[in-house]
Amino acid sequence: MPQTYFTPGPAELYPTFHQHLQRAMDEQIGSISHRSQRFRDIYKFADEQLRTLLSIPKTHGIFFTGSASEVWERVLLNCVEHESFHLVNGSFSQKFFDYAGALRKHAHLLEKPFGEGFDAAEIDVPEYAELVCLTHNETSSGVQMRPAEMHKLKRKYPNKLFCVDTVSSAPYPDLDFSLIDSAFFSVQKAFGMPAGLGVWISSESCLQKAEYLLQNDTLTIGAHHTLPTLWKHYRTYETPATPNVLYIYLLGKIAEDFNRIGIDNLRRQTEEKARMLYKFLDSSDAYEPFVKQERHRSQTVIVATTKKPAAEVIATAKAANMIVGSGYGKFKESQIRIANFPAVSAEQVANLIDQLKK
Amino acid sequence: MPQTYFTPGPAELYPTFHQHLQRAMDEQIGSISHRSQRFRDIYKFADEQLRTLLSIPKTHGIFFTGSASEVWERVLLNCVEHESFHLVNGSFSQKFFDYAGALRKHAHLLEKPFGEGFDAAEIDVPEYAELVCLTHNETSSGVQMRPAEMHKLKRKYPNKLFCVDTVSSAPYPDLDFSLIDSAFFSVQKAFGMPAGLGVWISSESCLQKAEYLLQNDTLTIGAHHTLPTLWKHYRTYETPATPNVLYIYLLGKIAEDFNRIGIDNLRRQTEEKARMLYKFLDSSDAYEPFVKQERHRSQTVIVATTKKPAAEVIATAKAANMIVGSGYGKFKESQIRIANFPAVSAEQVANLIDQLKK
Repeated sequence: MPQTYFTPGPAELYPTFHQHLQRAMDEQIGSISHRSQRFRDIYKFADEQLRTLLSIPKTHGIFFTGSASEVWERVLLNCVEHESFHLVNGSFSQKFFDYAGALRKHAHLLEKPFGEGFDAAEIDVPEYAELVCLTHNETSSGVQMRPAEMHKLKRKYPNKLFCVDTVSSAPYPDLDFSLIDSAFFSVQKAFGMPAGLGVWISSESCLQKAEYLLQNDTLTIGAHHTLPTLWKHYRTYETPATPNVLYIYLLGKIAEDFNRIGIDNLRRQTEEKARMLYKFLDSSDAYEPFVKQERHRSQTVIVATTKKPAAEVIATAKAANMIVGSGYGKFKESQIRIANFPAVSAEQVANLIDQLKK
Repeated sequence: MPQTYFTPGPAELYPTFHQHLQRAMDEQIGSISHRSQRFRDIYKFADEQLRTLLSIPKTHGIFFTGSASEVWERVLLNCVEHESFHLVNGSFSQKFFDYAGALRKHAHLLEKPFGEGFDAAEIDVPEYAELVCLTHNETSSGVQMRPAEMHKLKRKYPNKLFCVDTVSSAPYPDLDFSLIDSAFFSVQKAFGMPAGLGVWISSESCLQKAEYLLQNDTLTIGAHHTLPTLWKHYRTYETPATPNVLYIYLLGKIAEDFNRIGIDNLRRQTEEKARMLYKFLDSSDAYEPFVKQERHRSQTVIVATTKKPAAEVIATAKAANMIVGSGYGKFKESQIRIANFPAVSAEQVANLIDQLKK
């Protein structure tokens, strides 16, 4: 009996995944050259579908890496000479910040407790910070930062580069890429694919910064997946090294499925399912939403504090073939995390709620 | 009608690939958590199978990256403070060398023309080089460096770290890991999988070097996939970031298939098929082997100079559903490259030879 994965990534595969995979196998996509016209067509198709889905303008390129975590490193190497600035309120925004330190950048941070969120008005970006690193959806705590707040902040600091981690939320957040210079995600979350591909959206401004840094021979922007090499190959829909051709093909197909539904519908469906879950949590005696401020509650990763030990809740759901995520880190015993990605339907969410009620 | 890919990567999928993929889908491997016991078992299984296949001792860990190209960067960041040394005789060994420059290392090189190979006796490693970077199989030119020569060189310079690129040859080369500190490959070559996973074998000596470099705060060993973080998680068969779980599962299964055949048989079969190809090329009026010195002729990527335009040869083979690789770079018009990986049988190689004879 197949299980339904409500885990925040790796997650439930999107329902059309298997048919696209079968087609890819029939067409021998796993064997084609990444220097062939067939591959360039696949890259171009994925690029067009993502561009439509996320309203990405021509000023931004779309690149592929091994994972979204890799992009944390790449964007810091390519866009920061000395200083970065990070909003930190959970384990993943913390890791983004830690990467900056490991790369010997001077990393500033504004920190909030686990479960709390950020609004633009309370944020002062340090004067010399070159890159502002935001996390749209903190996967560990289920906190979101609303795009409107990000846009407001960028308008206040128009000369700084803004990068948004949308790992566990894209395509949900409606980012305005005339303001956001860079964003990235991985495919094993809301796109309903197995892990193994990162997607990096990056503007010409980021490229210019990387090219400027490249002239400084006391500094490195890295050797692999640098913005100048990615862009150079991107102009002909190629990649510097052999990419995950199969997953790029599958991503294009799933993005096309999403476009058929329409991004507005997809976002509405996400919000509707989130509403069902939060409404249940708010009214339940056995659970409560971990994030108190409604505006900071993630629409894609819902975190609940459990009255019973979380392990018990998870085990009971598993017996009913529903896999719920455990709390992150020290919240493992007292929280559950429920992914609300397009791969799970409103009906499946209703079934989960019925299960959690038991 | 399916085509047979004799291309040097991406290449023909290994015949058992599809059944393993089907099983993985049935078991929902694409959705499982990378922090679950199920994943740790998958990593452990792949580790054990690769360890058996390649005779990897306990002194060495086995890590996963997005690609082998990524490992070029990682090994240079983690194992070189100031100076590296590279043997360069083609496009891929050149890229390894170029990565060192991009990372602001002082990179020495000994260069030979495209199509020529290296022997230990002619090599002097510069005094201050910390890492010796060798390419077992230069995919662009079809030149191999025999493991015995690598081992001889390491015995001459026992205090330097030795790293071997086995991208388009592993598991063929019989490396002695009591001498070789690090080696790496990608799965879309001789392992017959789609691209999207790099495998990095690395010794405790490499880890110690990385830990030493980590203390120097004027230097970075990178932030993502550093040896200290990879090793730390490896001790419990985990990874620092979400890896390509599905491909690690598939790699373990294919390595198990290889072990059932036995590495000695696999190597013998590779040599037998290579012998068939070189014998044909040597006796043909329409082709000749590009690599003149027999001891430098690759057993896994056979490069031939064509009398007819290479494009014509490739098109004719394609019409018979056999996909042959084109020559690399400026040799595109005058050469073909034939991959001799385990996924193609002696019978398929014989069919290709019949085709090329026409």
